[in-house]
Amino acid sequence: MFIVFEGIDGAGKTTQINLLADRLRALGLDTYVTAEPTGMPTGRDIRRVLSGELQKTPTQVAAMFVQDRIDHNVDPEHGIEGKLAAGKAVICDRYYYSSLAYQGSLTDFDWVMAANCTCPEIRRPDLCIFLDLSPEESMKRITKGRTSTEIYEKAETLAKFRARYLDVFEKLRARGEKIEIIDASGTIEQGAEKIAAVIEKHFGV
Amino acid sequence: MFIVFEGIDGAGKTTQINLLADRLRALGLDTYVTAEPTGMPTGRDIRRVLSGELQKTPTQVAAMFVQDRIDHNVDPEHGIEGKLAAGKAVICDRYYYSSLAYQGSLTDFDWVMAANCTCPEIRRPDLCIFLDLSPEESMKRITKGRTSTEIYEKAETLAKFRARYLDVFEKLRARGEKIEIIDASGTIEQGAEKIAAVIEKHFGV
Repeated sequence: MFIVFEGIDGAGKTTQINLLADRLRALGLDTYVTAEPTGMPTGRDIRRVLSGELQKTPTQVAAMFVQDRIDHNVDPEHGIEGKLAAGKAVICDRYYYSSLAYQGSLTDFDWVMAANCTCPEIRRPDLCIFLDLSPEESMKRITKGRTSTEIYEKAETLAKFRARYLDVFEKLRARGEKIEIIDASGTIEQGAEKIAAVIEKHFGV
Repeated sequence: MFIVFEGIDGAGKTTQINLLADRLRALGLDTYVTAEPTGMPTGRDIRRVLSGELQKTPTQVAAMFVQDRIDHNVDPEHGIEGKLAAGKAVICDRYYYSSLAYQGSLTDFDWVMAANCTCPEIRRPDLCIFLDLSPEESMKRITKGRTSTEIYEKAETLAKFRARYLDVFEKLRARGEKIEIIDASGTIEQGAEKIAAVIEKHFGV
């Protein structure tokens, strides 16, 4: 069971991933929670780029994500393949859907898609759960301490990336991917119940 | 003018690249000679893999080459794009043809092709020159100090990769790439004359 969570900032990915992991463990499933970019060398370089410490083009960043993602699949110690082979359920915070929505809008989309989705060592998840939140609702959750200009720019960016995600999902569903879009506008408990329902629908647990 | 040299071990790439660079400079062309893997961080990691110091899968290595090649194109200091923009002729020892011939035979070929040849920041060379040598002739040049078993294995490997190269060239010509296969079995001077002739044919110098 390899499940990916995606969502724009403020959608509640971390909270819902932890709740789902707790629920799966309570059901007796050994569950491994992981995230991208990873803590491995290329993942650390990506974090330096995202923080502005290191300057790279969007194409360079997309290639770094591909390399980090392959490492994330096959690394002997931290790799998803090994965890799945050991019988664990794997839940991952962001995966290639993020690359397609973010880098895919800044460099050649088809190249980002081919580099990720046809790679023999980047496993296709069994399910992607997108925590969907209107940019307005997302802003309410993350605007503490920001100026009104920052807030306006941020809302525009969130709206743009939400639209990119929905477009990416349409393309990936055409390739047979399983993607569930969950309305994350309610309470944490309501979100967790919706997630539990789609997990039961797809995996029977 | 962006020219790539390819060839199996012993074909004489380094010698011929230096002779061509000398000839172009004598003609008044500012000429920059470079090679892959590069001396930049990812290139240095690739060298550690090739020397056996670092263990990676062929897919990981192919992704590392993509990243190193993008860096090699766009790096502000060492990048091919910048050298070409400054009016230099660029000659490169190995490029994506090597990835296709080597990693392409060890992991998914179509993925290696897409990751390299559709990348917006991996420039297509104006000309690829393949120094072609029979594995037998190549062996004569590189067998000093090797045992007979090593020689037999090495000859088999060279024959395999020469065949891979020829197959790759057929695929890339179908995509419009310009590739010249030069018989490198004669003397250094004979090789240099043949190379000078194809440069004149393609670039008029």
